Amino acid sequence: MEAKRVILALFLLFLLSKSSAFPSRKSRVHKPCKRLVFYFHDIIYNGKNSKNATAAIVGAPAWSNKTILANQNHFGDLVVFDDPITLDNDLHSAPIGRAQGIYVYDKKEIFTAWLGFSFVFNSTEHKGSINFAGADPLMNKTRDVSVIGGTGDFFMARGIATLMTDAFEGEVYFRLRVDIQLYECW
Amino acid sequence: MEAKRVILALFLLFLLSKSSAFPSRKSRVHKPCKRLVFYFHDIIYNGKNSKNATAAIVGAPAWSNKTILANQNHFGDLVVFDDPITLDNDLHSAPIGRAQGIYVYDKKEIFTAWLGFSFVFNSTEHKGSINFAGADPLMNKTRDVSVIGGTGDFFMARGIATLMTDAFEGEVYFRLRVDIQLYECW
Amino acid sequence: MEAKRVILALFLLFLLSKSSAFPSRKSRVHKPCKRLVFYFHDIIYNGKNSKNATAAIVGAPAWSNKTILANQNHFGDLVVFDDPITLDNDLHSAPIGRAQGIYVYDKKEIFTAWLGFSFVFNSTEHKGSINFAGADPLMNKTRDVSVIGGTGDFFMARGIATLMTDAFEGEVYFRLRVDIQLYECW
Repeated sequence: MEAKRVILALFLLFLLSKSSAFPSRKSRVHKPCKRLVFYFHDIIYNGKNSKNATAAIVGAPAWSNKTILANQNHFGDLVVFDDPITLDNDLHSAPIGRAQGIYVYDKKEIFTAWLGFSFVFNSTEHKGSINFAGADPLMNKTRDVSVIGGTGDFFMARGIATLMTDAFEGEVYFRLRVDIQLYECW
Repeated sequence: MEAKRVILALFLLFLLSKSSAFPSRKSRVHKPCKRLVFYFHDIIYNGKNSKNATAAIVGAPAWSNKTILANQNHFGDLVVFDDPITLDNDLHSAPIGRAQGIYVYDKKEIFTAWLGFSFVFNSTEHKGSINFAGADPLMNKTRDVSVIGGTGDFFMARGIATLMTDAFEGEVYFRLRVDIQLYECW
Repeated sequence: MEAKRVILALFLLFLLSKSSAFPSRKSRVHKPCKRLVFYFHDIIYNGKNSKNATAAIVGAPAWSNKTILANQNHFGDLVVFDDPITLDNDLHSAPIGRAQGIYVYDKKEIFTAWLGFSFVFNSTEHKGSINFAGADPLMNKTRDVSVIGGTGDFFMARGIATLMTDAFEGEVYFRLRVDIQLYECW
């Protein structure tokens, strides 16, 4: 009798192990294994703000130049950036990392961009990098890009990042809120 | 005797569970969990077609300009695109999404490119994006790039996409067939 | 008694299977499933070396041009490359593949770059590609970027690549050592 009870217990344990083998993949509602919210601040060079600028146009279509964002919703402007990352929405808060990479405005009819960039951390709280790529239809309230990898504290990370334009001033300053949801953590 | 039979059953179940723990990773022949075939259409701005163009040169080497593709197999030309995606090979079919991003011709001796781009869908059939990156040796009949992530319907997608040049006209119009094979679906 | 011993054996086997279900994910020290070390060689076009150059500036900020790397630590320079990959640190060794893609200098205060590129192999030893993306703080002795995907022999690969500047000559020649550690192999 005892043997049977042990077998039953084992069997239940076995079923349990089966159902939790790919926990996040089987459930319809996924829960991030790590979640982080940051802000980053993009100040585009416009010919007058070289001291403060954190970004510059380095590619532009034939009909434009690199000091003024192109017409037709900036189509073709390729921007390189090194933006401070902060924990709150204040540009003057102590940066806890840098957002570095490129974006390119890629549509004539509406503002939309394609992004390839990294968050680079080297503080007591976070060491390592998170790498992102994806489309950014700027006019949507929120839009998701992919977390395509990570290093250091974020070794092998995968997930998504939800971007939200938190503020902008003219065509010079943009503040983005980034809600990073990692679904693969090592 | 019965206990032994139950133990045997359990053991077989156990072996089964072991062998199916990573089904797609163990078998030599992988089957995609999702497969999608699309066409996208790239019309490069050449100084005369600003109305129809879906792509423009925004970076070029010192020896070239942004209206004509560079000599030496366009080495150094960086193109931004927002191309319609269709279900068949007809440019005039109703687009079901947009292919957005960049490519850059990266070899002097032969046509070859590096791509970073997204498929962006917002239709009843597909909502979300698929993100791609990889080398595109254009002269090969087929070439594979990586699916590096996805959002919405394609949440956390990974896989490969097989590109094929379906047609081209001069140096203005290119039509690519894309066979997307996802091997990680959530 | 025998039944109990079998149950015990089964139970131990069960625990073992649990602990090895995600071997690399559970252990604190991860072991790569594949490891590869290569060198690649970047010769930037400077107006005089068009024959030997493997890379060229194709994007530059408003204050610079495409023949000389920009001041302020080359901030804003976007470079397209097609560099030979070798097994040892000799530029003149037989290349076993090509490193192709882009990098962009993205910080004014110090040398640092963002990379999107692929290793493309078509030899008897390796066929296929490995795709990379990430931040490259050049002044650090080693820095990690992400392996975001692969094709052919490197189908579905994920991992990291540790870059090391092995040598440089002026602002023209750079030799990088790349230690590729794959943690997902199919």
